[in-house]
Amino acid sequence: MTAPVYEKVALIGLGLIASSMFWAMKRHGNLAGTVVGYARSDATRDTARRIGLCDTVCDTLAEAVEGADLVVLCVPVGAMEAVAQDMAPHLKPGCTVSDVGSVKRDVIRSVGPHLPEGVVFIPAHPLAGTEHSGPESGFAELFDNRWSLLVPADAEVPEEDMARLRALWEGMGANVEVMDADHHDLVLAVTSHTPHLIAYTMVGVADDLRRVTDSEVVKYSAAGFRDFTRIAASDPTMWRDVFLTNKDATLEILGRFTEELFALQRAIRTGDGDLLFDYFTRTRAIRRGIIDAGQDTAAPDFGRSPRKAT
Amino acid sequence: MTAPVYEKVALIGLGLIASSMFWAMKRHGNLAGTVVGYARSDATRDTARRIGLCDTVCDTLAEAVEGADLVVLCVPVGAMEAVAQDMAPHLKPGCTVSDVGSVKRDVIRSVGPHLPEGVVFIPAHPLAGTEHSGPESGFAELFDNRWSLLVPADAEVPEEDMARLRALWEGMGANVEVMDADHHDLVLAVTSHTPHLIAYTMVGVADDLRRVTDSEVVKYSAAGFRDFTRIAASDPTMWRDVFLTNKDATLEILGRFTEELFALQRAIRTGDGDLLFDYFTRTRAIRRGIIDAGQDTAAPDFGRSPRKAT
Repeated sequence: MTAPVYEKVALIGLGLIASSMFWAMKRHGNLAGTVVGYARSDATRDTARRIGLCDTVCDTLAEAVEGADLVVLCVPVGAMEAVAQDMAPHLKPGCTVSDVGSVKRDVIRSVGPHLPEGVVFIPAHPLAGTEHSGPESGFAELFDNRWSLLVPADAEVPEEDMARLRALWEGMGANVEVMDADHHDLVLAVTSHTPHLIAYTMVGVADDLRRVTDSEVVKYSAAGFRDFTRIAASDPTMWRDVFLTNKDATLEILGRFTEELFALQRAIRTGDGDLLFDYFTRTRAIRRGIIDAGQDTAAPDFGRSPRKAT
Repeated sequence: MTAPVYEKVALIGLGLIASSMFWAMKRHGNLAGTVVGYARSDATRDTARRIGLCDTVCDTLAEAVEGADLVVLCVPVGAMEAVAQDMAPHLKPGCTVSDVGSVKRDVIRSVGPHLPEGVVFIPAHPLAGTEHSGPESGFAELFDNRWSLLVPADAEVPEEDMARLRALWEGMGANVEVMDADHHDLVLAVTSHTPHLIAYTMVGVADDLRRVTDSEVVKYSAAGFRDFTRIAASDPTMWRDVFLTNKDATLEILGRFTEELFALQRAIRTGDGDLLFDYFTRTRAIRRGIIDAGQDTAAPDFGRSPRKAT
């Protein structure tokens, strides 16, 4: 039996991602010799112990990271700097520090300077999630066939350390790509962050509109709106931090979005059917690209009404 | 064996909705004595014949509607007025004329005046659809447990005729509600039309952004974006007509949307984390409402990466 990829892994923060990582590591069986967890709140640590999340749940950050070969920050990105400061004195020389945050430039900026010499810093971002939160929300399959992006903080990360972190994510089911931090933040602004903001906004508008009752909004939600509401149920802390830390890219995309939207708004106001038709035809092609790439999702659906008893 | 709900049903336009209506009627077995279909293009009529869509495919509109007890307009709403004008002289006295368009005030305005005295006009809107189009896209289950809204053109529709149309939609699997036309258009602007426009816009922005390649947009599409692309693959003709004919309600919702978006944009620019957090917390409650109403959809997912051969 070969040695596990890491002897001791420390998960800092025990939410959806950390708990899924634990279950996925356990499922594989040979990714980590032992997995310890730490969370700031007593209640979270108690829950984790109760459900068997992690081999050991530590009551202090120091205890968790001591001797760990890999430390993964799974706290909201806004909380990472403080954690980095607190754990730095206790890190084992030569260990790898990583994370799972949805933005990367800001994580590098806020965490990097606190890490001692000799610690290998390889930020990461698994493109996976659900609308649920907390230590009980994780499951082993979350990363299966998902992308996990490794975003090394600088060019000098040893190949061997990159290979180990890649092996961990692949062992948990993901496919790994390496990406530059600023490019990551722009791509994610386009494909995830700005769409989320827009979904939140649409749901907020519906909530405000008194002439349309809440129950109608719920009952008659079409594909578009219900997808938006699912997005708008995502963790508020995580998303607040994403927008505060991926500000430039998000604002750039938002600016472009409002330009396009105003053009479409004018077309509607002036009855320019041709412009609308051309626009909608063009966007159809992008969807084709996704289907052809094997990334298709289920067909859209309107709100299902409960079958009345006959 | 009781008599079918309608002896002869004519489906005008043979796309996703009409074809699904045929298969759903056939599945039930006693909703229609015979179903005839008509489409403007030879190719569509040939395809329909080839796949057994409708008991008879007619080569003229007149032939299709003659003697029909129910005529359902399943053409884009922009095309309905011309169809109404052409078919009017051939309608059987006392028949019901209905439709399946996504807007209702405009359909009443454009179709109503052309219908002869004695014809019962009951516009409808089944809240169901997929991203596919055409005569081959229909299937019997499309309306199962979906809402179908009946929007009578005036207060004098005889109860018996309303009951028959309700029985048809319920027989096809739907649950029926009766709604006022202007209220319908507002509710749909909020829950469907404006979200669609926004999804189209987000996809258009991604398409423009050269620094993020198309393949990255495809590969790393997160839940939000992929849902948007699915929406943006919807039929361009149908959606162009929706926005041209539900202009006022759509522009009202769009106006509110841009107000909210600018407020969030400012919060991001100024780093107002509290405003963002409060906003995202509020929108989560709406999602709860949908789950509690039994309208939940599948969990969101990021782009699934194809498992590389090892």
